Amino acid sequence: MLAEIITIGDELLLGQTIDTNSAWMGAQLSAHGVRVHRITSISDEAKAIQAALDEALSRVDFVLMTGGLGPTRDDITKETLAAYFDTQLVMDEAILHRITEWFAGRGFEMLEVNRHQAMMPQACKVLVNPRGTAMGMWFEQDAGQKVVVSMPGIPYEMKGLMLEEVLPRVDQHWKLPTRYHRTLLTQGVGESFLSQLVWDWEEQLESHGVSIAYLPAPGQVRVRLSAVDFDPVVAKERVEAEVTAFLVLAGNHVVSDQDEGLGAAVVRLLTKKKLTMATAESCTGGAIAASITSVPGSSAIFKGSVVAYDNQIKQSMLGVSDEALQEHGAVSESVVRQMAAGARERLGVDYAVATSGVAGPGGGSIEKPVGIVWIALSGPRGVESKCLNFGNSRTRNIERSVREALAWIIRAAK
Amino acid sequence: MLAEIITIGDELLLGQTIDTNSAWMGAQLSAHGVRVHRITSISDEAKAIQAALDEALSRVDFVLMTGGLGPTRDDITKETLAAYFDTQLVMDEAILHRITEWFAGRGFEMLEVNRHQAMMPQACKVLVNPRGTAMGMWFEQDAGQKVVVSMPGIPYEMKGLMLEEVLPRVDQHWKLPTRYHRTLLTQGVGESFLSQLVWDWEEQLESHGVSIAYLPAPGQVRVRLSAVDFDPVVAKERVEAEVTAFLVLAGNHVVSDQDEGLGAAVVRLLTKKKLTMATAESCTGGAIAASITSVPGSSAIFKGSVVAYDNQIKQSMLGVSDEALQEHGAVSESVVRQMAAGARERLGVDYAVATSGVAGPGGGSIEKPVGIVWIALSGPRGVESKCLNFGNSRTRNIERSVREALAWIIRAAK
Repeated sequence: MLAEIITIGDELLLGQTIDTNSAWMGAQLSAHGVRVHRITSISDEAKAIQAALDEALSRVDFVLMTGGLGPTRDDITKETLAAYFDTQLVMDEAILHRITEWFAGRGFEMLEVNRHQAMMPQACKVLVNPRGTAMGMWFEQDAGQKVVVSMPGIPYEMKGLMLEEVLPRVDQHWKLPTRYHRTLLTQGVGESFLSQLVWDWEEQLESHGVSIAYLPAPGQVRVRLSAVDFDPVVAKERVEAEVTAFLVLAGNHVVSDQDEGLGAAVVRLLTKKKLTMATAESCTGGAIAASITSVPGSSAIFKGSVVAYDNQIKQSMLGVSDEALQEHGAVSESVVRQMAAGARERLGVDYAVATSGVAGPGGGSIEKPVGIVWIALSGPRGVESKCLNFGNSRTRNIERSVREALAWIIRAAK
Repeated sequence: MLAEIITIGDELLLGQTIDTNSAWMGAQLSAHGVRVHRITSISDEAKAIQAALDEALSRVDFVLMTGGLGPTRDDITKETLAAYFDTQLVMDEAILHRITEWFAGRGFEMLEVNRHQAMMPQACKVLVNPRGTAMGMWFEQDAGQKVVVSMPGIPYEMKGLMLEEVLPRVDQHWKLPTRYHRTLLTQGVGESFLSQLVWDWEEQLESHGVSIAYLPAPGQVRVRLSAVDFDPVVAKERVEAEVTAFLVLAGNHVVSDQDEGLGAAVVRLLTKKKLTMATAESCTGGAIAASITSVPGSSAIFKGSVVAYDNQIKQSMLGVSDEALQEHGAVSESVVRQMAAGARERLGVDYAVATSGVAGPGGGSIEKPVGIVWIALSGPRGVESKCLNFGNSRTRNIERSVREALAWIIRAAK
């Protein structure tokens, strides 16, 4: 079963908004046995919407659209779909009531443009959106052979509609084979190194009905194994057997055997081991703490962090010595080790990780060029430290330092 | 001048990678007078690539592709393009030399699959990628009327190639009208409220040759005004006149008059005013600090942060009183005010912002439901506090709390 996604909005084409909706929808659909065949982003123009819809429906039976349902003038998706399906907009009193309540509940004034959001195409099934004022729409063509769904582009509203309205209807409407995935997270080795390591095994995968993909990001590679079958047990068994084989070949590079970020992997591992952690961050500026605390349940393992951008704070809150700062400077092995040890003691945790570096683009020198990052880990076995260099990009330096720090905690606590 | 972007990779369709490349490319192209007409994401299949390329070239003269150039088996873009342009792959000795050096410089072993990355299509102009082992390609058709560019999908490598190789060639190859944009960042009001506020003015915009777009995100709306003209001065003047008019109507909702994030706006404002700041974070877990420190130059205004997830740390590092914690609990007005005041004093800054809330999805109670967030700001005029509630989603609670905190600093320091 194939589907296509069409995302609508000039802001996507102009690069002012990153389309995060498609990836989320792709993952959800895939888990329901629907494979996304193509994602198309187009502008808020009736002609563009009609053309994209024509083309998508010529290739697949199911099209999901997001965007262009807001109350402002540039939002024309609803009118365009009504014309496309040759139906008219009529006032939906139940929806009008909902929208009125929505504004009343928030103490906002309801405007004429919001009233218009209750005008719905007569031929569609309205998908109620309790999170906003733009409703979703489910259109059918050719006695249900083709389905077109339209949802608002705000991710939070789209996700609610997908989970509560669209996906349950998809399960009912089509009876589909299951796609089973497993994704393993490796850290610290490149894609080609990994591929070489498992070369012979990989060559036999296809004949076992399993496909593989390498998903590289700076400093990490996710490895995805998948199989499709009408029997979910068969698909699962096929993939799990290959996961076991992969772990034998490359297991020491794997930091998580689930499809999760490094932050979630840390939280899961430390929770299981009943361990706690803290961070003392200079160049990462709170990004390690933020990546841990973005994970639900992280309060069980995370006690806190001192972001010590200023040297005085390194001294007053982490106990870094004046001598170390004077003699070696803030970006040095002795300072980062003192930061980690100080954080472990003062925050009372099992593991404390510390960073100090020159994130860039400014602030480098000949001895300490932009990109140099010292990391230290203080744990039950003492303090360890290492020096990394990821080059000139600030974002990349922070991102890779965060990943190194998180992977280090996982390897130490495993 | 219209272009299309094609991003290649099963991981995009399966939702395991968010396509951030297209937005970045769209913004860059737009600044060079190239309007992106469509973005298409497809799988790593030769047929899909050929079909998407055929369609794109039937609509526009310039196609940019990313992805599928890695060393692993699922990477087939280069072979597919060679076949599409009816040319063969030949060993490019200069590129082979570069790749060999690249591996030698990093102390990694060079593999046969990496050698193959130096096999380039004979008919293309090779775009040298100094950041990795997959080179870019520039193909021309119909005596240069049509151009197809292929780049690796890793954002850092793609960006380098765009800035150093592709965009300079675009400027040379086509002589284009300029598109001038201004984007204003508003915070705390909805899209429909804003649109209503400027309704009459907006109605005249088109006749002045200026277009408007509202780009909403939770808690903020960016407003983009743009004009296209062969004379860059004319395009700029047209837009700037309307920016002035918008600021008269809605200026008190605007937190930045540039196309930047709230973190960058804070850094710019405080730097200009020679002010410093710190954060004391519970429910935001370091995310406010991270959003400030991700901005280059933030060390001039940001001294540090205490992420106090644990109550003991609220006491020991921020001086929150035992009484306040016992009597009101960690998520309370008195605790968050003490956190802000403690951070301002102990970190020695002009402004300290503090958060304490129930981010969710767990941890709520009847008195303190999931989503409740107390924020306090301690500054030269004393301590202020407010209570917010953004609902059930952890990500959204953190994101919106961060935005509220940053906007509050801007409004206080302006």
